[in-house]
Amino acid sequence: MKKLINDPDDVVDEMLDGMTAAHPDRLRRLPETQVLVRDDAPVDDKVALVTGGGSGHEPTHAGYIGDGMLDGAAAGDVFSSPTADEFEELIGACDAGDGVLAIIKNYEGDVMNFETAIELAEMEGIEVESVVVNDDVAVEDSLYTSGRRGVCGTILVHKAAGAKAAQGADLSEVKRVAEKVIDNVGTMGTALTSCVTPEKGEPTFDLGDDEIELGIGIHGEPGTERTEAMPADEVTEHLTEAVLDDLDEGQEVLTVVNGMGATPQMELFVVNRRLQELLGERGLETYDAWVGDYMTSLDMAGASITVCAVDDELKELFDAPADTPALTTK
Amino acid sequence: MKKLINDPDDVVDEMLDGMTAAHPDRLRRLPETQVLVRDDAPVDDKVALVTGGGSGHEPTHAGYIGDGMLDGAAAGDVFSSPTADEFEELIGACDAGDGVLAIIKNYEGDVMNFETAIELAEMEGIEVESVVVNDDVAVEDSLYTSGRRGVCGTILVHKAAGAKAAQGADLSEVKRVAEKVIDNVGTMGTALTSCVTPEKGEPTFDLGDDEIELGIGIHGEPGTERTEAMPADEVTEHLTEAVLDDLDEGQEVLTVVNGMGATPQMELFVVNRRLQELLGERGLETYDAWVGDYMTSLDMAGASITVCAVDDELKELFDAPADTPALTTK
Repeated sequence: MKKLINDPDDVVDEMLDGMTAAHPDRLRRLPETQVLVRDDAPVDDKVALVTGGGSGHEPTHAGYIGDGMLDGAAAGDVFSSPTADEFEELIGACDAGDGVLAIIKNYEGDVMNFETAIELAEMEGIEVESVVVNDDVAVEDSLYTSGRRGVCGTILVHKAAGAKAAQGADLSEVKRVAEKVIDNVGTMGTALTSCVTPEKGEPTFDLGDDEIELGIGIHGEPGTERTEAMPADEVTEHLTEAVLDDLDEGQEVLTVVNGMGATPQMELFVVNRRLQELLGERGLETYDAWVGDYMTSLDMAGASITVCAVDDELKELFDAPADTPALTTK
Repeated sequence: MKKLINDPDDVVDEMLDGMTAAHPDRLRRLPETQVLVRDDAPVDDKVALVTGGGSGHEPTHAGYIGDGMLDGAAAGDVFSSPTADEFEELIGACDAGDGVLAIIKNYEGDVMNFETAIELAEMEGIEVESVVVNDDVAVEDSLYTSGRRGVCGTILVHKAAGAKAAQGADLSEVKRVAEKVIDNVGTMGTALTSCVTPEKGEPTFDLGDDEIELGIGIHGEPGTERTEAMPADEVTEHLTEAVLDDLDEGQEVLTVVNGMGATPQMELFVVNRRLQELLGERGLETYDAWVGDYMTSLDMAGASITVCAVDDELKELFDAPADTPALTTK
């Protein structure tokens, strides 16, 4: 399997340097770490938002560092949690005295290492709260999780909580908004092909030429069902059905059609077309529809659908300005 | 080859509907065409910018419709030029009386059909000027071109000329800026895998498991050299060497590392890291560095590097606000 990399052992290091080289006025790498923070961190008079996790999901996580979203993010090796030490450095570098909200995707390594880091930071007198995102409705427990996995809905947590923090809200308010998104968001994905990690250089799992996997995880973890390949409209129906669940007619929603890394945008728009039709048929109202690569799985072909029920508060926060490498709104 | 599509014959139609469904407040589809225009087109007191070409390069072309960039774009079938009729409808829908600049990528079908459309529009009394982008330094003539191909540098033409038009400049000034970018921009790409068109469902060309193609075109047209796969740094050196050409030490440049559709962002940042090192070694100064999928080739794995020499005028125009589905600056 060909990749545009050098030594697989260096890929995260080189990627992080390539990111700061692309955004020298926005991103700063903490020396001898895999942690990126806002160039102007710590930002005074603002709750800091931090996150992190394994690499290979770009633009997650560092792509969302900037005004109106994250203050910093720790990058682990490919599909591996950052260490507790790196999370601790991240928290320390971003706190300006107004407290820190840690946004954790629900994977055992991330949760454990972030929790350790939070304890250490608290011993240094930093106020830290955390939320755990578990938006993947596909499976209840999984290869790396107790409970549901955290996937693309995490970006909506960054956006809403980041906007709340930028408005000067205190830590409890920022946390409340993050939890509101978590309570209202669901995601389900499908894979057409396996991802290939730089280290292994071969597909993580086997999928036949005429097979797809529904409910796939962003590391290639097993989903709910392996089926014959089907037309995009049918795939979209399966994914949408899983995330709409119990939404009432008239409910406003924000939707995300997310590419897994190797999916042409053409296909994502084909999926979005059917998704919006389905929402209309269910009497739901789309307040905003995002289409793009927000949380990927290296070179996996496939897509996920995220639906988040919104109220006036969330709509205002999703609309608020953000200026980051991967997401700019104004 | 699995794709998230329905009938291949419907893919462009469904994609365009999926785009307008994602951006109902920005994009409007002209009835019974494959033409998308700004929702508020024609925009008064402004030169209109239009473009178009085959589909399969998303977010090119319609992703760049909006404030500070394009007024509209015609989408052909996959890798096929739009018809002269569609280009004519596009021009007519975007002109508000201040003239239209057509930005044409140098492919024989696009040039021929756009020229016919321009003649027809001029007979209707619309003032139209055109520029032809030919930034691909790989090959002098190609499968579908006389002269060099138009590729990712086209986005920089949209950005700079679009900013100039938004400032109220007249048609000759907007055209002058477009030509300035064209005179100063070069691109070279590489493919690790072939693209697969929806219609054919099989790779457009064969590339061995350990082979890459340098100088590839965005439709899979042959490049300059087929070589063994090599580390990202070496690939980057080959591409960069080809586009730096005769730039003087101290020259400021804008760079683009563009993904071909199936390339993980991780790899694009690895390439950007080496690109910026090479520029530094050559005494060139990076004024801005873009990394992402700007002009793709369906599901091709690979990347292109674009370098554009900039002066104060171009820097101001690249920095100017833009608000489009695929590119937002502020």
